[in-house]
Amino acid sequence: MAPTLGILLIIFSLFFFPLSTRSRQHPLDPLTPSEFIQIQAIVKNSYASSAYNLTFQYVGLEEPKKSKILSWMINHSSSKTKKDLPRMSFIITRINEETHEIIVDISNKSIVSDKVYTGHGYPILTFEEQTSASSLVLTYPPFLRSIKKRKLNISEVVCASFTVGWFGEKKKNVKRNTKILCFYLDGTVNLYARPIEGVTIVVNLDVMKVTEYTDRLTVTMPKAEGTEYRKAKLKLPLLGQRSKGITAIQDGGGFDIDGHSVRWANWKFHLSYDMRAGSVISLASIYDQEKEKFRHVLYKGFVSELFVPYMDPSEEWYYKTFFDAGEYGLGLCAFPLEPYKDCPANAVFMDGYYAGQDGTPVQVKNVFCIFEKYAGDIMWRHTETAIPGKFIREVREEVSLVVRMVSTVGNYDYIIDWEFKQSGSIKVGVGLTGILEVKAAEYTHKDQMKEEVYGTLLADYTVGVYHDHFLTYHLDLDVDGHDNSFVKSTLKPRRTKSESSKRKSYWTVDKETAKTESEAKIRLGMKPTELFVVNPNKKTKMGNDVGYHLIPGSQTSSLLSDDDYVQIRGAFTKYQVWVTPYNKSEKWVGGLYADQSQGDDTLATWSSRDREIENKDIVLWYTLGFHHVPSQEDFPVMPTLSGGFELRPANFFESNPVLNTRSPPSPRTFPNCTSVNS
Amino acid sequence: MAPTLGILLIIFSLFFFPLSTRSRQHPLDPLTPSEFIQIQAIVKNSYASSAYNLTFQYVGLEEPKKSKILSWMINHSSSKTKKDLPRMSFIITRINEETHEIIVDISNKSIVSDKVYTGHGYPILTFEEQTSASSLVLTYPPFLRSIKKRKLNISEVVCASFTVGWFGEKKKNVKRNTKILCFYLDGTVNLYARPIEGVTIVVNLDVMKVTEYTDRLTVTMPKAEGTEYRKAKLKLPLLGQRSKGITAIQDGGGFDIDGHSVRWANWKFHLSYDMRAGSVISLASIYDQEKEKFRHVLYKGFVSELFVPYMDPSEEWYYKTFFDAGEYGLGLCAFPLEPYKDCPANAVFMDGYYAGQDGTPVQVKNVFCIFEKYAGDIMWRHTETAIPGKFIREVREEVSLVVRMVSTVGNYDYIIDWEFKQSGSIKVGVGLTGILEVKAAEYTHKDQMKEEVYGTLLADYTVGVYHDHFLTYHLDLDVDGHDNSFVKSTLKPRRTKSESSKRKSYWTVDKETAKTESEAKIRLGMKPTELFVVNPNKKTKMGNDVGYHLIPGSQTSSLLSDDDYVQIRGAFTKYQVWVTPYNKSEKWVGGLYADQSQGDDTLATWSSRDREIENKDIVLWYTLGFHHVPSQEDFPVMPTLSGGFELRPANFFESNPVLNTRSPPSPRTFPNCTSVNS
Repeated sequence: MAPTLGILLIIFSLFFFPLSTRSRQHPLDPLTPSEFIQIQAIVKNSYASSAYNLTFQYVGLEEPKKSKILSWMINHSSSKTKKDLPRMSFIITRINEETHEIIVDISNKSIVSDKVYTGHGYPILTFEEQTSASSLVLTYPPFLRSIKKRKLNISEVVCASFTVGWFGEKKKNVKRNTKILCFYLDGTVNLYARPIEGVTIVVNLDVMKVTEYTDRLTVTMPKAEGTEYRKAKLKLPLLGQRSKGITAIQDGGGFDIDGHSVRWANWKFHLSYDMRAGSVISLASIYDQEKEKFRHVLYKGFVSELFVPYMDPSEEWYYKTFFDAGEYGLGLCAFPLEPYKDCPANAVFMDGYYAGQDGTPVQVKNVFCIFEKYAGDIMWRHTETAIPGKFIREVREEVSLVVRMVSTVGNYDYIIDWEFKQSGSIKVGVGLTGILEVKAAEYTHKDQMKEEVYGTLLADYTVGVYHDHFLTYHLDLDVDGHDNSFVKSTLKPRRTKSESSKRKSYWTVDKETAKTESEAKIRLGMKPTELFVVNPNKKTKMGNDVGYHLIPGSQTSSLLSDDDYVQIRGAFTKYQVWVTPYNKSEKWVGGLYADQSQGDDTLATWSSRDREIENKDIVLWYTLGFHHVPSQEDFPVMPTLSGGFELRPANFFESNPVLNTRSPPSPRTFPNCTSVNS
Repeated sequence: MAPTLGILLIIFSLFFFPLSTRSRQHPLDPLTPSEFIQIQAIVKNSYASSAYNLTFQYVGLEEPKKSKILSWMINHSSSKTKKDLPRMSFIITRINEETHEIIVDISNKSIVSDKVYTGHGYPILTFEEQTSASSLVLTYPPFLRSIKKRKLNISEVVCASFTVGWFGEKKKNVKRNTKILCFYLDGTVNLYARPIEGVTIVVNLDVMKVTEYTDRLTVTMPKAEGTEYRKAKLKLPLLGQRSKGITAIQDGGGFDIDGHSVRWANWKFHLSYDMRAGSVISLASIYDQEKEKFRHVLYKGFVSELFVPYMDPSEEWYYKTFFDAGEYGLGLCAFPLEPYKDCPANAVFMDGYYAGQDGTPVQVKNVFCIFEKYAGDIMWRHTETAIPGKFIREVREEVSLVVRMVSTVGNYDYIIDWEFKQSGSIKVGVGLTGILEVKAAEYTHKDQMKEEVYGTLLADYTVGVYHDHFLTYHLDLDVDGHDNSFVKSTLKPRRTKSESSKRKSYWTVDKETAKTESEAKIRLGMKPTELFVVNPNKKTKMGNDVGYHLIPGSQTSSLLSDDDYVQIRGAFTKYQVWVTPYNKSEKWVGGLYADQSQGDDTLATWSSRDREIENKDIVLWYTLGFHHVPSQEDFPVMPTLSGGFELRPANFFESNPVLNTRSPPSPRTFPNCTSVNS
């Protein structure tokens, strides 16, 4: 949960940014390097005195109003575009221990607004301040004494910062703090496997000083042995010798990327990068062959928050209740993907840019990859043998388009995929891998554990602490247009009248449209209910509501008590599904200021107003949750655990939209292939 | 739900069967063509008189006792093998309107036993008798009058047989009946889209005569237009022009197949074909690098039943409550896979053989495919940036092995995959595609529907009737040995004592071992529970139970009333999970005789004995269910709807078993490839 910058800035910074931008910029395009430089200059200029200690905590695009974007979509050759859609940026800075929300008009080189935020919570932590805070500890005398007491070598110690959460403290006591945890290398690079347990260090990020230090207890350091994961350092025989090479081959790219606009098969959408959300899909539309036009599906989709509460209430662990998007930035933690490994050979990569703490743009090479996926799956098929004299077998292979980002928030790696299918489905996939956050404990066998340890004994002195992962998705569906409704179709068992049928029972569908937000809070699994976002203003020729079906992939919700501070902050995990009316400011389910938030700006508080949501521009929020009881297989790195959900067209099309798919435009064989092993 | 044979026998019969068999036969190998011929001769010889009307309804391997198989596994070079493990066959015949269960010793060319079965239910319907019954109707005068009345052309009519279910009839009235439904081609091959509604025809299969005929009502015939799915006949522009060719390439096969034994990476298993179950996975074991040996995981896995009840209680539809495995045979309905389309270019195919109605072996070419799957996924990864001066990024691509069968039971196509992962997971995937069973109805718009129609209006005069699909898997896990237990780990919310922690709540794990069958009937979704099969006699070094975790993929259970005859027969769908002690005779959850079964031989009746299951050889049964509310996209063929579940090692290994996976043995580029378009 605690990335620090290390050498990254040096590796990935671009020292040359072309200042010219493309002539046809999309209004949702992320900020360019030259725009970051302009923003930096405008903001710094406004606080030019050396008396100002200014840091950029978040710099992102201030999006034009949705209505303006939609108008622009209809006619973007208009000369009015530039005036109507000026490039703006939303910036969060810390200036002399205050949080400022600044809006900059890049086109006019002016500050539109600059407000001091005085509410609860703090912005995303920058890499730089996390690195500074961590470094601080390494020369802090009490810590050096703790290290000496433990007979450890300070040169093998690595520290990282961990957000502190909120546990009922009153506002005046809530400093902008972080906790620093340290780990021990000495024979491994798997630092998370070797926590220096028992030490609590609090750093105030504003003054960049250690403000609290406790060395409460000493626990045996888990062994370095068995924690290595780098191929070059592993000595055991490798598995998989019998497996021959396999790869995906493509006869040229199957999709077009123009700037950040992607077109593939019947889909088009916009792909942007945001330092908080990471990948942002916008304006996803699908071409309808019958209607001969593109039809809207998803105005915007992204991971709004990734909440990871651990389940150990003890002094050194209770606070570990991370908001990975709002505290660390899923985009910020999305490191470059490795070609051929993170993505297949046919992938195309896209870079991202964020503002460093001083406002300078930082390039993340290959932050996204886009590839056509062919997994050997079948899009549809049928064998027909009932017609005498005929043997019919029609099969269409499934080829889809995947947009991938991997966000490594300290120990954990999240593989975040958006998959577009020609059938109209959008499948969202998440893979959990990386390294568990473990606790050192004095056990080498389960039988020794006489008290609760809040986890699984994974190796000598190593407990994998129970925890959850909740990924809450913002899904602003605009199904075939702006105004939509949320429909719950409950499958109801019915009894037949005994004389009418030999059957005694069957089920049918009771449809209910949610009128207000309270009717759209859904705890899945209670009833057999299918959930739809429909356009009540559009019907198919048959009279069915044009819609999309949410097929959830997990029914996991939070098990924490409503009155627990952790759950107050993470209240959006109480239900898996919520629907709100569209509101530009409601983007981050844990609040705009998630670090040390107090739960007064969450999806639950927004939704408590119980606004009307019928036939309105609505946003669907779905939480994909995982309760994680670690097992020994998850150590020292965890094999990917996958989950996901599907948005599937339901009476959106008049009939199967892939009936007439070219099947397939595939080269069948590559007779002259020569393999080159890496 | 109603395959008929058509021309298939002619296409796929082998006219030459090599009579020699391989010298080293595996005791679980399916019957060979020469064995079928021997069985045919032995049985026919015993009923040689022309007075016997004998049909083979099922012919399969009579497996040796599990204990014998396991001993054979340990030492199969022993000369005793042949004596200990004679090749036997279990045969179900109908002889003069009686069901016989015959066991043949093929080695000795003798009948071991021949018993008349007098209980409820009937065996699988043969293709031949279904074809005969369907043909019968086409010359049946009342039917010809019905066709004439509807102004249809008899030469465009195709009929198929539909099993009749059971609705409380007393034994003496339960003839071996089937219903025949007819469809209209006349411009399409999509017969299921054009039902001749309102006619009920019952054929007694034993006497092969129409025994009941009703023409109750006439409904407008749905149009042929818009129902075509063959590429060659479709005229609209094809989608996907922008998508370039893509394929999987492999530098030689990554796995070995010796007869029916498959070895790949760290897995080995046996793959067999059975005319009822289709694909049967046996003796799946995984090599443990650390222990330097193969360890048992799954003794046997297969689809025990596929129950498809429709939800329309009306006269022509109420009985549609199909048991696709027990009535039609998932193996029998598994038609040849199409290379490059049903399976990727690197697939290897395996044939199957079943006995035709007269006992003659019939070959099904390419009934299974086996391929290494590389979908661009990641087996595990981590990026490490916390160590100053280091940027570590380790990624292993996911390559798995898939065994595929597609069973087309009349209108529906079921893609049934077993996927083996190097991490130890077995993922089971099911894809539902093919054609909906639709009902003709007098509607061209939803607004016209004033009464319940039990489905979705999909096209003019076409209702897609609500229904379920329940695939119940037999999963005889032998986790690291024979005796296992079933453990329910419930995640329990806990309150902290207020003085002890700043947290108010957390969750922990309460483990409970099911002692008897009643404690192992699980309705998923009621509680946050994780389910495991563990070996209580084996512990990891850390003291954890060696186990496998069932990660369910759907929590769908039957919504029918317990007292409904349909549900009495399909009682195994009341819970998604059951555990029974191993019992060789308990294979088919809907009963050995599923056709017209009365529910006295189901998983529910077996389990009602409440036998002990702790530290015993146990079988896990999991039902993957789908409630299907059709949408217009499902017409005229349905884009694949996918589901599945995972069996994932949990403290089976001491640590991540794929830490040291060759990463990857992949050719990276194929510089000299020339594509050949099909």
